[in-house]
Amino acid sequence: MSLPRIAVDAMGGDVGVRVMIEGAALARRRHDRFKFLLVGDETQIKSALDHHPNLRDASEILHAPEQVEGDERPTQALRRARRTSMGMAIAAVKSGEAGAAVSGGNTGALMAMAKVSLRTMPGIDRPALAALLPTLGDTDLVMLDLGANTECDARNLVQFAIMGAAYSRIATGLAEPRVRLLNIGTEEIKGTDALRGASEKLREASQTLALSFDGFIEADKLARGSADVVVTDGFSGNIALKAVEGAARFVTDLLKDAFQSSLRSKLGFLISRPATELLKHHLDPNNHNGAVFLGLNGIVVKSHGNANAAGVANAVAVTARLLEENLTERITADLAEGAALQGSMPAAGETAPSAGSDIR
Amino acid sequence: MSLPRIAVDAMGGDVGVRVMIEGAALARRRHDRFKFLLVGDETQIKSALDHHPNLRDASEILHAPEQVEGDERPTQALRRARRTSMGMAIAAVKSGEAGAAVSGGNTGALMAMAKVSLRTMPGIDRPALAALLPTLGDTDLVMLDLGANTECDARNLVQFAIMGAAYSRIATGLAEPRVRLLNIGTEEIKGTDALRGASEKLREASQTLALSFDGFIEADKLARGSADVVVTDGFSGNIALKAVEGAARFVTDLLKDAFQSSLRSKLGFLISRPATELLKHHLDPNNHNGAVFLGLNGIVVKSHGNANAAGVANAVAVTARLLEENLTERITADLAEGAALQGSMPAAGETAPSAGSDIR
Repeated sequence: MSLPRIAVDAMGGDVGVRVMIEGAALARRRHDRFKFLLVGDETQIKSALDHHPNLRDASEILHAPEQVEGDERPTQALRRARRTSMGMAIAAVKSGEAGAAVSGGNTGALMAMAKVSLRTMPGIDRPALAALLPTLGDTDLVMLDLGANTECDARNLVQFAIMGAAYSRIATGLAEPRVRLLNIGTEEIKGTDALRGASEKLREASQTLALSFDGFIEADKLARGSADVVVTDGFSGNIALKAVEGAARFVTDLLKDAFQSSLRSKLGFLISRPATELLKHHLDPNNHNGAVFLGLNGIVVKSHGNANAAGVANAVAVTARLLEENLTERITADLAEGAALQGSMPAAGETAPSAGSDIR
Repeated sequence: MSLPRIAVDAMGGDVGVRVMIEGAALARRRHDRFKFLLVGDETQIKSALDHHPNLRDASEILHAPEQVEGDERPTQALRRARRTSMGMAIAAVKSGEAGAAVSGGNTGALMAMAKVSLRTMPGIDRPALAALLPTLGDTDLVMLDLGANTECDARNLVQFAIMGAAYSRIATGLAEPRVRLLNIGTEEIKGTDALRGASEKLREASQTLALSFDGFIEADKLARGSADVVVTDGFSGNIALKAVEGAARFVTDLLKDAFQSSLRSKLGFLISRPATELLKHHLDPNNHNGAVFLGLNGIVVKSHGNANAAGVANAVAVTARLLEENLTERITADLAEGAALQGSMPAAGETAPSAGSDIR
């Protein structure tokens, strides 16, 4: 077994075992070098596997007697970590039985469990949730944090930038991704103290790190292709991401109404169907599914709770890619480069520890 | 002159006098009871009015020797307030020469000048920028703050809710608009202290005020028609609004590409043109132009800097409506009702003044 296994929380997601297993089976077809550890109710998993012999041949089942509920508080989920499919999938990463975990369950619980079990990398105060978003440019955009940290200081944002750039290099192949900070204007004076502080530090950092810092970006420019990494606190990032999702659905709903408004437009719709199908494919969130928690000693990927099998397959593919490309090691190396920078910036309200010495 | 005049900053906006005057002339046709005070360079205004005799007949020109620049800092703009078209338009509201002002200039400068000159209403700590946004429901959504206040405490958010509900009642005719707070989840524990504090207060307040408080809303639900007023701090509000604008443009750009991808789809596009034109009209930001600063002793409306004449006309129409419907008086009355509530909530880091006694 040359490549580490992928642990799949088979119970996560609103849609249940069947979709998680079908998604893993789809992914297995595209990534046939990978093996899987399917964590959850053994009976249900076995039954689902009956339809997917190709996945069964590459999988081991790890029975978990319980599962995390969608509305369960992270603190409560933590207490049940050893008995739930989510907690056991993460524990498999910690023990080395798996190289990465993917779950469609409760994001807050996943974050809490992953942080407590795997711990943050040396030099990282907090992990961040990062996703790849489509743009009008040639490459996807890495955006983080998407909701793991409601409030962030300048030091957090700089760490997010370094981790996001490492992810972008893996996902896009760019040598020096263009990093920008999400703000409500592009002038230096705009935004919060945290943003202005992070901007100053990143301007210095871009001299030594494998990234270029291009200042602030406003939320209407996210998809224009003028940034490869957009860094923000988890509150604003979550708002921006969901606003984009909502607006895309709003426009497509309006379009549907418009096409059904007359016989003529219905005809036009039928004729231009291949074009609108292309658009539909491009906008389907399942095709961009799979957000990763960066900054942990191990790879944990979050799949949308309501993803379909194709969506789950994409999340598993993201996981496979990050494993193959050694995400964790690459971030560690980047952080070592950025250590001098990190050390020179005190965290909010405290004196900075000599971060340089923390990094091996 | 039964109705108060509208002061138009003729120099504001990226597009110059011609578009501002053309927009005012368009609005004048629809609101023929209104008179205008056109503030700016007299020669340029006179020349622009040559093409719009209907506006000329209803207008007086107030010559302003200077104008606020788009990138000018608010503090600098404040120093030149008496000589700039923006400052003089606001001063006309303060002196009573006009009932309201509309400008397409620098938002930060407009906010600063309006606040210093007109001052906030008794019981209001900070004004907020509010706009009407389209939804899939029957009525538009009032959203605030859209960028006037980067950081807000619970007390600010409660005040925004009361002001936003007053605006919604005017714009939609609803007796008790449904107010929600923008957050990254709908559970009580989600978000910042400010949001949780505001939620608690608004739950009590909805008993006595002419609004119903429906808890938190996520950014992907903004356009679904499940809220009439969405309250947020200026940072998140600006991010959400711009993310929506950017996503709408992203989807329409993709759609354009899709329709041009083959001869067949081009044909389909031509046939369904009336439908897509309807969509284009619905999504054109000019059709939703005109954000108002709520909480000031006077009405000040911000027009988009790059609005076209139809967009400026919409901003002037918003201004006219708010004047006709006595926005300022209605907010004052609502605040008096909410005074007990306000008084019981201390501002961040200080003991609350007895707000009740501030309100006549």
